[in-house]
Amino acid sequence: MTLILSNADVEKLLTMPDCIAALEEAYVDLADGRGVTRTRSDTITPTGRQDALYSLKSMDGVVPALGVGAVRINSDILTWPKIGNNVRRVKVPAAPNQRYTGLVLLFSTETGEPLAIFPDGVMQRIRVGATNGLGIKYMARQDASRIGILGSGWQAGTQLMAACTVRDIKSIRCFSPNKDNREKFSAEMSEILGIGVVPVAQTEDAIVGADIVMCSTNTVDAVFFERWLHEGMHLSSIKRPEVEPAAILRADRVVVHTHDGKPIHTVSKGLELPEDKENMGWQVASEIDFRKLPTLPEVIAGRVPGRTSDSEITCFLNNLGLGYQFAAAGAVVYKRAKEQGIGHDLPTDWFTEDVHP
Amino acid sequence: MTLILSNADVEKLLTMPDCIAALEEAYVDLADGRGVTRTRSDTITPTGRQDALYSLKSMDGVVPALGVGAVRINSDILTWPKIGNNVRRVKVPAAPNQRYTGLVLLFSTETGEPLAIFPDGVMQRIRVGATNGLGIKYMARQDASRIGILGSGWQAGTQLMAACTVRDIKSIRCFSPNKDNREKFSAEMSEILGIGVVPVAQTEDAIVGADIVMCSTNTVDAVFFERWLHEGMHLSSIKRPEVEPAAILRADRVVVHTHDGKPIHTVSKGLELPEDKENMGWQVASEIDFRKLPTLPEVIAGRVPGRTSDSEITCFLNNLGLGYQFAAAGAVVYKRAKEQGIGHDLPTDWFTEDVHP
Repeated sequence: MTLILSNADVEKLLTMPDCIAALEEAYVDLADGRGVTRTRSDTITPTGRQDALYSLKSMDGVVPALGVGAVRINSDILTWPKIGNNVRRVKVPAAPNQRYTGLVLLFSTETGEPLAIFPDGVMQRIRVGATNGLGIKYMARQDASRIGILGSGWQAGTQLMAACTVRDIKSIRCFSPNKDNREKFSAEMSEILGIGVVPVAQTEDAIVGADIVMCSTNTVDAVFFERWLHEGMHLSSIKRPEVEPAAILRADRVVVHTHDGKPIHTVSKGLELPEDKENMGWQVASEIDFRKLPTLPEVIAGRVPGRTSDSEITCFLNNLGLGYQFAAAGAVVYKRAKEQGIGHDLPTDWFTEDVHP
Repeated sequence: MTLILSNADVEKLLTMPDCIAALEEAYVDLADGRGVTRTRSDTITPTGRQDALYSLKSMDGVVPALGVGAVRINSDILTWPKIGNNVRRVKVPAAPNQRYTGLVLLFSTETGEPLAIFPDGVMQRIRVGATNGLGIKYMARQDASRIGILGSGWQAGTQLMAACTVRDIKSIRCFSPNKDNREKFSAEMSEILGIGVVPVAQTEDAIVGADIVMCSTNTVDAVFFERWLHEGMHLSSIKRPEVEPAAILRADRVVVHTHDGKPIHTVSKGLELPEDKENMGWQVASEIDFRKLPTLPEVIAGRVPGRTSDSEITCFLNNLGLGYQFAAAGAVVYKRAKEQGIGHDLPTDWFTEDVHP
């Protein structure tokens, strides 16, 4: 049977400790070169609408240690409205019932068969959280207990859950420019984590005295600056532009998620993407050669130290996601779903064939 | 609703004339640079078996003119048994009920939603046939009526169907080294095409006097040699090694399917693929720079002539498949399936999401 799972199923089945453990095992395989991941590709064309483009994004990864391969696909309608003074990239929920289209297909490396198909959204944020959680596990001080987080959006919650999984966290302060958002988020996360999350009105109020500073925004401009670094801090980022390049250059130890560079872009002739024009995202910190920095898998595999003294300033940059993460987290979800009898069972024969392809 | 279709459905829905027409339209879009295709990627790792490897292959393409994007995925268990003196690459049907795993996912460029999911096998051979059919349409003599075909396997049938769609074919001779195979194939195809297909015992018997010679094998060695070229011939190939490089060099006009080079290989460290060791496939004809040859889409779009006189020798090399073909052929299948009410309807909500991915 091939399992069809929902985001609600994934949320129930994929705990943060399980996801962190699966990624940790898979990253050793990746550092050893047994595990493999294929750079994300974005295929972008016009649509029938003047104000929107179509993007078909895919990334593949195979974790031999867990016996699974995954393909993650996003089929997006993209727009770039001007919000305030900034151009933002906004996905339009144009599928029926105002929904987005993102899928993970999971395959067995032993039989080739499709094991499961499920939406990517919930897993997407859990694996980002788990990855930065591993950054904290291997790079933050052992006694780190105070977090300052910048951001209160979709990714911020799993960032905190991951941090609390790998360190004994005692206090969390949250800055986000919108008062309502930061207060709502802080109340919700206090409840979920059982640790008081305090909303603060200035970035500095979140950062002063923090052992760990987590940037968790969708910004296109820097939100963390060099002047805020202090001895012993671990700085964590989920998006390249979040951290001012000077801060990266001053940190004693900087680790990136992957050496995979830019996604492979294949774009219709004559199309100009606003992010290329506006220099959004990828070109920030061009004075830093990310390929010369060690990767998280190398740190986990013990090839490179994450931190060598309590006074060092460490920095983990989650610079690009990998299809590989969906294979590792997918293996957990599939195993748990089978154990618990969750999901719609469809005949595997619907997704396989007797003719030689 | 998202449609789940079978190979039998695809066979019923995708006629050769429809497939040729869809590719023809889509290739104009591709030559114009509006249509885009992402180079195939192969992600290859060990399995639990010593004698087999796992390969996760994917390719994407978007045809804005038809409003569809497609991802084709193959999840294969590969072995390389020695058959006679040759090492052959053999896919093992290791999925339940001894089946292979190959899938096409079709998406709307207007809403992003998944329109259909179906196995790739039947479409795979129809689109190869249709592509070489377009080669004949644009490059063979208008009065070409006699075909010699080398091969009697899975691909050969659709090669002949395509040729008969674009030219008024009167005679077909088939050579294949195994007597039983060529006789069985010839009898079957005579029935399907309503044109007598004559099995012959020597390659030359198929080629002498043929206006069109079609190579349709899975060989790793050349099966067509320069000495067999004659004035006015159109030579058609579905696999790089089939045609001796000297024959390609002597042809007056050579067109390739695509400038996409080798697939993107991402392979576990230390794995040695027999095809790399044995120099199978890709490196044949290395003295010819395929990127300097015109492509079929350029010929169809009228940028380059396919043939300028009846005496020319023309040659079409279908050097690499494209995800783009699955989007074009998929658009036809989806339209026909909706018209005829064919396939399993699943809720589109199963494959979309309300969270921002």
